[in-house]
Amino acid sequence: MQALIDVPAGLNNVAVANTEIGSVDGDAGFYHYRQYDAVELARTRSLEDVWYLLDTGELPDSDADSRWRATLAGARAVPRELHPVIAAVAATTASPLAQLRAVLSAGGSALGLHPMLDLTEAERRAQARRVAAVVPGILAGLYRSARGLRPVEPQPSAGHAAAYLHAVTGMAPTEAHARALEQYLILTVDHGFNASTFTGRVAASTGADLADVVCSAIGALAGPLHGGAPSRALDALDAIGTPDRAAAWVRAEVAAGRRIMGFGHAVYRAPDPRSALLRQVAESLAKEGDGALVEQAIAIETEILTTLAELKPDRPLPSNVEFYAGVIMATVGLPREMFTPTFAVSRVIGWVTHAVEQAAAGKLIRPSAHYVGPPVDRAAVPV
Amino acid sequence: MQALIDVPAGLNNVAVANTEIGSVDGDAGFYHYRQYDAVELARTRSLEDVWYLLDTGELPDSDADSRWRATLAGARAVPRELHPVIAAVAATTASPLAQLRAVLSAGGSALGLHPMLDLTEAERRAQARRVAAVVPGILAGLYRSARGLRPVEPQPSAGHAAAYLHAVTGMAPTEAHARALEQYLILTVDHGFNASTFTGRVAASTGADLADVVCSAIGALAGPLHGGAPSRALDALDAIGTPDRAAAWVRAEVAAGRRIMGFGHAVYRAPDPRSALLRQVAESLAKEGDGALVEQAIAIETEILTTLAELKPDRPLPSNVEFYAGVIMATVGLPREMFTPTFAVSRVIGWVTHAVEQAAAGKLIRPSAHYVGPPVDRAAVPV
Repeated sequence: MQALIDVPAGLNNVAVANTEIGSVDGDAGFYHYRQYDAVELARTRSLEDVWYLLDTGELPDSDADSRWRATLAGARAVPRELHPVIAAVAATTASPLAQLRAVLSAGGSALGLHPMLDLTEAERRAQARRVAAVVPGILAGLYRSARGLRPVEPQPSAGHAAAYLHAVTGMAPTEAHARALEQYLILTVDHGFNASTFTGRVAASTGADLADVVCSAIGALAGPLHGGAPSRALDALDAIGTPDRAAAWVRAEVAAGRRIMGFGHAVYRAPDPRSALLRQVAESLAKEGDGALVEQAIAIETEILTTLAELKPDRPLPSNVEFYAGVIMATVGLPREMFTPTFAVSRVIGWVTHAVEQAAAGKLIRPSAHYVGPPVDRAAVPV
Repeated sequence: MQALIDVPAGLNNVAVANTEIGSVDGDAGFYHYRQYDAVELARTRSLEDVWYLLDTGELPDSDADSRWRATLAGARAVPRELHPVIAAVAATTASPLAQLRAVLSAGGSALGLHPMLDLTEAERRAQARRVAAVVPGILAGLYRSARGLRPVEPQPSAGHAAAYLHAVTGMAPTEAHARALEQYLILTVDHGFNASTFTGRVAASTGADLADVVCSAIGALAGPLHGGAPSRALDALDAIGTPDRAAAWVRAEVAAGRRIMGFGHAVYRAPDPRSALLRQVAESLAKEGDGALVEQAIAIETEILTTLAELKPDRPLPSNVEFYAGVIMATVGLPREMFTPTFAVSRVIGWVTHAVEQAAAGKLIRPSAHYVGPPVDRAAVPV
């Protein structure tokens, strides 16, 4: 047998691919999408612009922008074939993220998806847009069906973030709410080779279709160590209640060996750059009059950071993207069970971009492992 | 930023984990499950014995065996909550494998699954048995629902392979057919860190539940470079027709740059050990009177091997597991669209075993990548 190549557990710092999509500098607290600072993109650009950038490698001019918005709005429609599936799946007790995966699994064919192995690059990109754009409509359809609410009419002139918020809540959002959600979505479109993106890339390497890829990625996003934290961070705020109780709560959690959700990150040692902007977005919502939760969160964050620095002086645990993400999503009117699914609304754009890149590489991902079990005796199978 | 560690594309020969489950020696043409030669297990043992071995690390004695068979037979039941989902999903145009993923996605909660992060090892193993055991019933339910056929009553006294065949076809299989399918299933339970197993392990590393893991793995199995070949190998037999036409067909396919499905493997350079036993199993079916397809396949295999050796003298392309797998599945009465899903009936046992091992390792898999796009200018986002 060929000698195996040893790498660190969890593949940390192992370069498993070349990518043109972006990168994360955890020490500097910086990440970018196709050369542009992701936080600056979230400050100054629309989600549609950023999506165009991911897809084409360039930011759109205004002509390209209006054609692109029309393309995406058209791609948002949920195929009629899937309506009975949405009704049946919404009636189960599965989580919204698992329900999304159920509908996408049943819907790959209705969405016109084919194995990427059999497609040109242009066809792959078109299918990537379709599957990423349909996710909000499926999530909203499931949410409303489970509550006996009628689906919301498509809003073709609304941006992606506003249309999603409208489709879930049934009400046209304020501009401030739509923009706050949009900034969260921009910040979470992509972030290096995180577990869900990598899972999707392994699936893409087999030549699978983009529903297969997205469903594989969802399986990793569903894990509490990856995508499961935004609602838990808000649960923690509920459990703490008032800032004066934060220190004692943190001490008790740490003593019990539990993580503090919303703090610390696998890659960032510097403050998470997403957290700083999300805090500003939350503060601007507070100025609009949605202030109670935001003020509670800011006060409690300070207490938690102080206590964590005291308890874990050797391990930096800055607030991560999830702490203010939950605050913003709650403030704009998303119910807590939709927090992780809303993460999927943006991250699916990253997943499909990575999948198209991986498919172009044309190489099956198939690693190896050290066998460390009992010695193999080729002769002896007891009968 | 920390320096990145370079590894070969596709992670070939990169040891991404330690495992006690098994290993593959591609040069020697040998693989094993927990120290026991997998081909010998398929010759001499039942699928239930092998499943017990994967789960516990030991082969069962006869007492353990009868308790285990009862446990598995109980775990095969499809929860009633999923019947409307099966009906709705079966009515779509999705592939059977995608339909399976849809039902498992909607059914994780009905199956009692919880994030592995929150479970003990014993609980994880129990949930692993449940999700792996229910797969044949879901596949058969989807197949029959799509054709307006009534579901088959559970067959608690039948083995897993026989019960599956009965549930799909609606007829009690002959012993020879059930055993032939069982031997195929044993041979394909596990096979190193193939793309679907690895995909499932990445999902498992996030602490996700076992439906998440299996659905992630299915996304990779769906890719034509991984699980998509058994039916294509049979399609090739149809296209060739008679052995005298095989050489010309192979030459035309190779000239067109297409792979010959059923030949060659990412790991094996020596003959695929699974192929040799499956050929024997096929020959024994021929002796039972199911001979036409088997004889055609044997004659055409010889012609293909001769022609490939002439066209690609530097690249060994022995028949792989998929060539005779398709022949056996067709001979025992499985329709062609169920070939890849039937691969999932066995491989899911491997996936969940790997997922339990990965969850115990307790480390998120999060690799990195080389950014090779345009140079990053932190200041410049055009407005």
